[in-house]
Amino acid sequence: MSASIDTNSWSCPLPLKDYPAIVLGHGGGGQLTAELVEHLFKPAFSNPALDRMSDSAVLTLPAGRIAYSTDSFVVRPLFFPGGSIGGLAVNGTVNDVAMSGATPLFMSAGFIIEEGFPMESLARIIDDMAAAARAAGVSIVTGDTKVVERGKGDGLYINTSGVGIIPDGVAIAPQQARPGDVVLLSGTLGDHGMAIMSVREGLQFETTIVSDCAALHTMVRDLLAAAPGVHVLRDPTRGGLSSALNEIAAEARVGIVVHEERIPVRPQVRSACELLGLDPYFVANEGKLIAIVERSQGEAALAAMRANPLGAHAAIIGEVTDAHPGMLVERTAIGASRVITMQIGEQLPRIC
Amino acid sequence: MSASIDTNSWSCPLPLKDYPAIVLGHGGGGQLTAELVEHLFKPAFSNPALDRMSDSAVLTLPAGRIAYSTDSFVVRPLFFPGGSIGGLAVNGTVNDVAMSGATPLFMSAGFIIEEGFPMESLARIIDDMAAAARAAGVSIVTGDTKVVERGKGDGLYINTSGVGIIPDGVAIAPQQARPGDVVLLSGTLGDHGMAIMSVREGLQFETTIVSDCAALHTMVRDLLAAAPGVHVLRDPTRGGLSSALNEIAAEARVGIVVHEERIPVRPQVRSACELLGLDPYFVANEGKLIAIVERSQGEAALAAMRANPLGAHAAIIGEVTDAHPGMLVERTAIGASRVITMQIGEQLPRIC
Repeated sequence: MSASIDTNSWSCPLPLKDYPAIVLGHGGGGQLTAELVEHLFKPAFSNPALDRMSDSAVLTLPAGRIAYSTDSFVVRPLFFPGGSIGGLAVNGTVNDVAMSGATPLFMSAGFIIEEGFPMESLARIIDDMAAAARAAGVSIVTGDTKVVERGKGDGLYINTSGVGIIPDGVAIAPQQARPGDVVLLSGTLGDHGMAIMSVREGLQFETTIVSDCAALHTMVRDLLAAAPGVHVLRDPTRGGLSSALNEIAAEARVGIVVHEERIPVRPQVRSACELLGLDPYFVANEGKLIAIVERSQGEAALAAMRANPLGAHAAIIGEVTDAHPGMLVERTAIGASRVITMQIGEQLPRIC
Repeated sequence: MSASIDTNSWSCPLPLKDYPAIVLGHGGGGQLTAELVEHLFKPAFSNPALDRMSDSAVLTLPAGRIAYSTDSFVVRPLFFPGGSIGGLAVNGTVNDVAMSGATPLFMSAGFIIEEGFPMESLARIIDDMAAAARAAGVSIVTGDTKVVERGKGDGLYINTSGVGIIPDGVAIAPQQARPGDVVLLSGTLGDHGMAIMSVREGLQFETTIVSDCAALHTMVRDLLAAAPGVHVLRDPTRGGLSSALNEIAAEARVGIVVHEERIPVRPQVRSACELLGLDPYFVANEGKLIAIVERSQGEAALAAMRANPLGAHAAIIGEVTDAHPGMLVERTAIGASRVITMQIGEQLPRIC
């Protein structure tokens, strides 16, 4: 997909112009590293904490609880319908922080770049990161760049970590799921995973499958305002809905039931899954959340989700039960039940 | 160096026993990922925030300023005299956080593992991380594991980020260096870089060169107590003393002078540098700090450094001047001067 980049639209900052591709020296901590920081990272991410250029960013936080999370991103290809590794690296961590009910504020970014990686692709990815960070209202305040030899990486890997503030009174954790709670899903399943797979496998559909990669913190904020009885939040990324709900069932020692016909899946995603022999329950999402909510507030929570632009297809997909603790069970449209276990290994490698 | 691991000393936790090496599925977010977390990461790093197993750790911080930093570690080989990538990944970030005068409290850890990496080596590295974190008094509260295909990595890359608390009244930043300040170095130069290089190049000396990898936050604490007029702290890692002092000179728009004969270098490090045509000014350190201090407090700062077990060879190596702003100048033993520029690229690739 990098072929789709318009090579005329990017004008390389002067001192980087001599280097159309990354060389080992860009990770050496000398002049070339400094030029990369000065002409690529600082202009894109500029904020007072970063611009101070110290070994660590200095930030002022209000007293209270913070949420702190990290993720490394190794998605292949680096550019895909609906985004790039850059936006994914920001939104993925924004979402992990938001899943504690927090407002994300600050992020770190660590780059591991393979020698020979095109400078222009790096610039495009940095732009995507900066745009995603602006959209989510977070500042990238500290970073690091390492370069590894050809054949010791795969273009670019990005790690981000993030810090956010948890409002008083919010107590969200996997262990909080209780029998009787309802299970909500904020939209269609499998869009991100199948967008990546359709590019890798060269699948052609009438409409392109586009990644759902997006920041979910505003939906979390709206949800908590409408339904303070939110017990659990989780974004079903790697491992999909199945891993997320199985983990919650195990942590809270409860059973979870989902109803097949209530789970929203786009037709082209369903077709792609069938073609590749994949199950949408196991496919990664990057702009969806699961909320487990006090039953009496289920409808209010659903309305809040649907009022958000990212939640048009939100649905109440199931409930928490004291039957079969630790187990996720699907009730099918014809009334049968099947246990949905966590997959053993890797259905879709390097999806995020 | 991985050959030096005693394969009898590690008893693999049961569910991991079927996997003597990492497979793609360990990064898939399913059962295998869960087993890695349950049987390797959780026992090693256990703390209440991590054990909560949520998308993000929830932490309580006092009101005030925090220091926040990140680094990725791509050192080769993974095991070297004096440590491993595990200890390095903890101490490197602890030190970056400490260089704002902060007490490090919490860390994240992100692993990018190449398919086929020995489980036992991973366990050994995790043990090193856990030991370093305990020694530094920091908790690893959130993490992530990704696996890439054979030939798309180099065994293991680790990213860490860290958060610490800055005591009231501390205002340390590169921009704070002022003409008249003295420049202190906490010990001998080049130990880490030459330990790595001697292993890579198979050099034999009478005594092994051992990495200085260590956490510096207690030295920072002692230093601030003895000399509140500390203006700048920096640990001269990649790029060495030269990059660190050139960056400070540029940020603060001051000149810096160092005196050749005052700079401590171990004889075997000097020999190794001469053999390989390297300059100790450019070689990485992982357990040393530079302090730029109000002149009147220079001796007190030096005494505090030397009283610390990591500071036995500390010295006042130079001073800040309003001559030649932005420039680092060495006065040699015979009275000559030379400008020490930041190296362009990479003298020692993948040193950290």
